[in-house]
Amino acid sequence: MNQLKTFLLLLAVLTSTKTRVVKALRDPLDRPNFVLFFVDDLGYGDLGFTGHPTTSTPNIDKLAWNGKTLTTWYSGCSVCSCSRAALMTGRQYPRTGIREVLGVVDTLGLPLEEVTIAEQLKKVNYTTGIVGKWHLGQRLAYLPSNQGFDYYLGIPYSDDMGNGKETSCSGDRKSEDPQTEEQDKMKGKPRPPRDNDYAAWYLPLVYQEHNRTRIVEQPLDLTKLAQKYNHFATKFIEDNKDDPFFLYFPFSHVHTTSGNNNKWNSMPNKQYASCSFQNRTKRGAFGDALAEVDWMIGNVYETLQCLGLEENTIILFTSDNGPWTPQHYDGGSYGIFSGEYAGYPWTGKASTWEGGIRMPAFAHWKGQIEPFSRTSQTISSMDVFPTFSHLAGVPLPDGIVLDGRDMADILLQENGQSKHDFLFFYGFCNGYWPRTGVAAVRHGPYKAHFCTSPGLGAYERTPTKYDKYPLLFNVEEDPSETFPICDGNTLPENDPDARAAIERILRAYAMEKATFEYGKIPPLPPGPGEGKGHYGVCCNRSTNCSCESLWDDNFQSRLFNVGSAEHHARYHEHLGEENHMKDTV
Amino acid sequence: MNQLKTFLLLLAVLTSTKTRVVKALRDPLDRPNFVLFFVDDLGYGDLGFTGHPTTSTPNIDKLAWNGKTLTTWYSGCSVCSCSRAALMTGRQYPRTGIREVLGVVDTLGLPLEEVTIAEQLKKVNYTTGIVGKWHLGQRLAYLPSNQGFDYYLGIPYSDDMGNGKETSCSGDRKSEDPQTEEQDKMKGKPRPPRDNDYAAWYLPLVYQEHNRTRIVEQPLDLTKLAQKYNHFATKFIEDNKDDPFFLYFPFSHVHTTSGNNNKWNSMPNKQYASCSFQNRTKRGAFGDALAEVDWMIGNVYETLQCLGLEENTIILFTSDNGPWTPQHYDGGSYGIFSGEYAGYPWTGKASTWEGGIRMPAFAHWKGQIEPFSRTSQTISSMDVFPTFSHLAGVPLPDGIVLDGRDMADILLQENGQSKHDFLFFYGFCNGYWPRTGVAAVRHGPYKAHFCTSPGLGAYERTPTKYDKYPLLFNVEEDPSETFPICDGNTLPENDPDARAAIERILRAYAMEKATFEYGKIPPLPPGPGEGKGHYGVCCNRSTNCSCESLWDDNFQSRLFNVGSAEHHARYHEHLGEENHMKDTV
Repeated sequence: MNQLKTFLLLLAVLTSTKTRVVKALRDPLDRPNFVLFFVDDLGYGDLGFTGHPTTSTPNIDKLAWNGKTLTTWYSGCSVCSCSRAALMTGRQYPRTGIREVLGVVDTLGLPLEEVTIAEQLKKVNYTTGIVGKWHLGQRLAYLPSNQGFDYYLGIPYSDDMGNGKETSCSGDRKSEDPQTEEQDKMKGKPRPPRDNDYAAWYLPLVYQEHNRTRIVEQPLDLTKLAQKYNHFATKFIEDNKDDPFFLYFPFSHVHTTSGNNNKWNSMPNKQYASCSFQNRTKRGAFGDALAEVDWMIGNVYETLQCLGLEENTIILFTSDNGPWTPQHYDGGSYGIFSGEYAGYPWTGKASTWEGGIRMPAFAHWKGQIEPFSRTSQTISSMDVFPTFSHLAGVPLPDGIVLDGRDMADILLQENGQSKHDFLFFYGFCNGYWPRTGVAAVRHGPYKAHFCTSPGLGAYERTPTKYDKYPLLFNVEEDPSETFPICDGNTLPENDPDARAAIERILRAYAMEKATFEYGKIPPLPPGPGEGKGHYGVCCNRSTNCSCESLWDDNFQSRLFNVGSAEHHARYHEHLGEENHMKDTV
Repeated sequence: MNQLKTFLLLLAVLTSTKTRVVKALRDPLDRPNFVLFFVDDLGYGDLGFTGHPTTSTPNIDKLAWNGKTLTTWYSGCSVCSCSRAALMTGRQYPRTGIREVLGVVDTLGLPLEEVTIAEQLKKVNYTTGIVGKWHLGQRLAYLPSNQGFDYYLGIPYSDDMGNGKETSCSGDRKSEDPQTEEQDKMKGKPRPPRDNDYAAWYLPLVYQEHNRTRIVEQPLDLTKLAQKYNHFATKFIEDNKDDPFFLYFPFSHVHTTSGNNNKWNSMPNKQYASCSFQNRTKRGAFGDALAEVDWMIGNVYETLQCLGLEENTIILFTSDNGPWTPQHYDGGSYGIFSGEYAGYPWTGKASTWEGGIRMPAFAHWKGQIEPFSRTSQTISSMDVFPTFSHLAGVPLPDGIVLDGRDMADILLQENGQSKHDFLFFYGFCNGYWPRTGVAAVRHGPYKAHFCTSPGLGAYERTPTKYDKYPLLFNVEEDPSETFPICDGNTLPENDPDARAAIERILRAYAMEKATFEYGKIPPLPPGPGEGKGHYGVCCNRSTNCSCESLWDDNFQSRLFNVGSAEHHARYHEHLGEENHMKDTV
């Protein structure tokens, strides 16, 4: 009997992956934690686990391998804001009214009436945090605090929408404070502020804690951004380890920066990374930036491991849209999704060729998701909303059209099936700005294009192409879209399956067009301090939106420390006040 | 004390991967076994571990993950025969005299003077076996038995170089013996035999045991080929488990078959697989064929595991050349190596764009090679010869130029460095047939093209392009060859590194051209039964090379069973005898 006890004890010790026996805090299926990694402008082919030869992403690869690789994940849109609108709401982005990339001094944002994933999860008492790029409206009313997130640290839009600064990594450190001579130089430049708003000059780093908002830095230091993100993300997990949380991590990496327009940025490339990641990979500046993402993801996972949260946490990883290919070495790679038939190499971001919408993705959940597994079932970013809702036990909201489908079966079962019979891709076939319509559809193994055009930055080279019939590919057998089954001019005579599919597709397309309701964003009146020239995020208008950093050890240690009694007390704390709200946090 | 013993026993049981405790038979570093998987026309992007979305290669992926992924592996040539000449000899293929793809009734083969890997390993008493496609000469004198291999089962050339037959997988089985009506139909066809040799009609399956040779089937049954390969490979390992062996497995899959010319083949595609693999993958016929390769590899590995040979066996996996892209769905995929700048999608097989020469690859050696590791150090197929020689402890042959470099450091150490300062790629820029010369070179992160042209089957569309300067890419940052650093017309003014690299490349190119010695194949006089119209592999000329299969349980069980006293007794057993040498095995 004594030996049996010894045996059982040893068995427990030896079969656990750690020497320390870590027990799940809750039943793993009871409101699991959600960690959603969402990289910016990352292509399918950019990771180690998807075959890039010189990328260095060991942490991401390990998580992918130890989970289920999702090889057929479509973004909700091929550009930033609308992709995020679809992700956050589970709805086709034109329903939300977000039909374009939001600008830096825009008056629009994701309508407050839309229910976000964060708002869903708040219904069952999740703590919700977001770190990184929001890009669903930079006005205070549209920032994450008002969309269901308890905590936020990040840039409200893309990191090419203003200048960041950079700390030199060599011995001779450049001034970390640009207020003095360098800023004076800027003032002398003829470049006008956008819409007469100097907020467009410098990238802000914003922190929110419930409805208290603070501009931490402006311009933010790109070489130190990852450290701050990392601190926020790991501390958020530590501080919330005992209760269900949702950590949404939309990296501002690996979007390009404004490059030469960036007066503070001495980097030769339009990518950035901390000093310890610069010149670290064979892939150059893009590889360095991606390696930094990998480092942050590794730290998040290590934190989950140390706290024994692996079995209570489902991790999803994907990207917002395809790579921005005209950005030379600074853009990512769509890998196998080259869209050969296009005849142009610009089939990434803002195109509805596979390269623009087909994302690298995996799901990881120790104990629930089979390690080293793969599926090619069709998944959309819009599926995250209903899936998280299901797993958290929150009923779906009444009275709204959800386009996403619950993918829990696909993740948790060996042969889970996609619920997308027809997955429509809204896009920009007539050139970019807001001409949104159905550009393509996925139906079984088929992908049909109703129109094709190159991605952002390459529109002018090639006009949009509309054909008589849908341009049809079998993307399961031909993922590079090289050999059309229907070239758009003649129906495939000898392929009855394809002909029948085209008929079904045309019927579904007609139905979609007849029933789809485009959303309108209700105008939001100016808040305190807002108005023309004052919609942008600005720490201090008297200094043309340039201020010292508030990020110090004290600030850092106080994140998430505001007592709960104070929470939700102040609704519309305004960004534009000259004191950048030092009193609020 | 009793408890301690229990503990130690349990520890041993629980920490071994199998319940049975398996011990390495020899010191793992003492003449390890070599298993070399070499798939035909497989592209970089075709596997799960390199990112193909609908491929099903779980066994290959698992081996890759548990070993070191080699992301920068170049084939020795972009087409079959010369790629194999380079692999077998460690030399640039034009040195060997093999300058083209060998035909089915060719008089040429790899010169017997060349030292093959198998001949090297025989020097230290390895048992050597080859299963699959040889393609270095189909004449008896050139077959594997005469090139260092003890045992051989396979097709002497590509599986589109004659017709195979196929057994129907539906309930109503077609005749497995095509001699009767179907063959009569063939006789009525106007298609002439090649060089008046009917051997070109039907694919033969050849078996060799030392110098005893037998044609097992003609035409061979493509639906049963994998079962035979599998039997050979696993039995070879079992029979030779106690001593060092070299198993070279050059799959005849996933090369296309002759398709419509194949009168026995009722498959709609130019790919084949056993009944249990047909229609099994989402990727179609190519995916099914590849899944069958994966099955064979899984069986080989399982055999190694069961025999406790994992720690004594180094496994390499790669392909002979890039995918044959004009073959529609039946061709493979180069994945990220799309050669965008070419402007044509035919940058695979027979081109020296990355897609034609950049191979999927990994090395696996339990206990010696770090699992879940990756390297992008430049490796060539030519490196296999010196590497295996080193690991087996065989000195390199005197008096020959070896172009391959020992890659053991890269495999076994974390930061092993490539020894290829300049790796030249010989190719076919003036159209395919034997106009071989240096087409490109890899130097550090750079790849320089001296000329470019599309791959096999697409030459006529696009002429070869020669530029004033080398067309230069940084393939570490730009693996898709999209953004040239030097476009061939103007030297890069603002990139001193690239300019210096071009100068070094031009110097090395001049040196290579001045010193390179093209080999000539010494003519081999006709052997017994050979002569015009009689060089092909033919089981019986009186039946136009169509014979019953000899493969039955008895044949199968007798593989490798000829007593060693008989071995090497008869040197030139001839293939063409009408009895197909039933007496020899």
